[in-house]
Amino acid sequence: MGRWEPNTKERLVQAALALFLEQGYEATTVAEIAERAGGLTKTTFFRHFPDKREVLFAAGQEVHGQIVTDAIAAAASTATPLAMVGQALDALAATFGEERRHIGAGLRKVIADNPELRERSALKRAALAEAMTVALHRRDVPEPGASLAADLGTRAFFSAFDRWADLANRDKLTELARHDFAQLRTALATLE
Amino acid sequence: MGRWEPNTKERLVQAALALFLEQGYEATTVAEIAERAGGLTKTTFFRHFPDKREVLFAAGQEVHGQIVTDAIAAAASTATPLAMVGQALDALAATFGEERRHIGAGLRKVIADNPELRERSALKRAALAEAMTVALHRRDVPEPGASLAADLGTRAFFSAFDRWADLANRDKLTELARHDFAQLRTALATLE
Repeated sequence: MGRWEPNTKERLVQAALALFLEQGYEATTVAEIAERAGGLTKTTFFRHFPDKREVLFAAGQEVHGQIVTDAIAAAASTATPLAMVGQALDALAATFGEERRHIGAGLRKVIADNPELRERSALKRAALAEAMTVALHRRDVPEPGASLAADLGTRAFFSAFDRWADLANRDKLTELARHDFAQLRTALATLE
Repeated sequence: MGRWEPNTKERLVQAALALFLEQGYEATTVAEIAERAGGLTKTTFFRHFPDKREVLFAAGQEVHGQIVTDAIAAAASTATPLAMVGQALDALAATFGEERRHIGAGLRKVIADNPELRERSALKRAALAEAMTVALHRRDVPEPGASLAADLGTRAFFSAFDRWADLANRDKLTELARHDFAQLRTALATLE
């Protein structure tokens, strides 16, 4: 393992995103991504990712699932299900600092342009909702309430993320997610 | 147009479902479906459906969207958003008579066995939710409430449909959908 190894995964992500934006997702090969990441080989790429598509998704999905799981497990015993989800969103949003906004903006553009990536993105959203649902079950929130609460949180997070992942936006993701989640909770009260 | 033409579409659906169940979705060709449907040709098949996959989905999607749209448009001016969605579910469920249960059961099994069909099925669910959302907008239900109400209705309908599409079940789809929708509405009240 060479001295640069710890950064390899992140460099591959950055290189892939840059190439996808420059020349399109379809036209980009794994060999090109590895080369752009600093003269790496395809073999190195495949040590980190199973395929070209996963370079955009594999990194976040597990980590994000763990963050919401931990936050819900740590919530006060008096917290309501939506309060637990709110804490999960705070914890998740806090990991998206300003320095990641340009990656978010690139990802959003690449995904919007490609049906295969849109589908994979929908699976990632579903995986986040599922992680929250399982964590809520562990806090004794029954069905169908746990799935509903998790869906509301997921919906708020991604509507906020879509606005945040825009280089013209100046808000913190935490603020946007709180706003969108509060708006959903207010809307719920008007449905009956 | 021959004398059997009015039933052709339904016969193609039945033939496709029978073959998918007997020998699998992947192994079945359009020519086999057309032949099983009473010695029809591939050309006839393609007059009714764009491809093998759509034979399971194309029929329902437009009709179901129209049914929920009409029901929401016809709801009383005093109806709450969830009451409007409840009327849409009643109207939709009423079109699934006992004679359609075996088709539902077959569809459910074929779809569960195939990732491509599961994906298409998810799109169909999303299209139903979208139809309800648009109909609620026309009734002046604002976002994000309209999307939430539509999602709740869609979730209730398909959880009910999954139980109904079982040859051992004896309940009417209308009853199952009302039960699941009421359960979701009750759960909502426990989330805050």
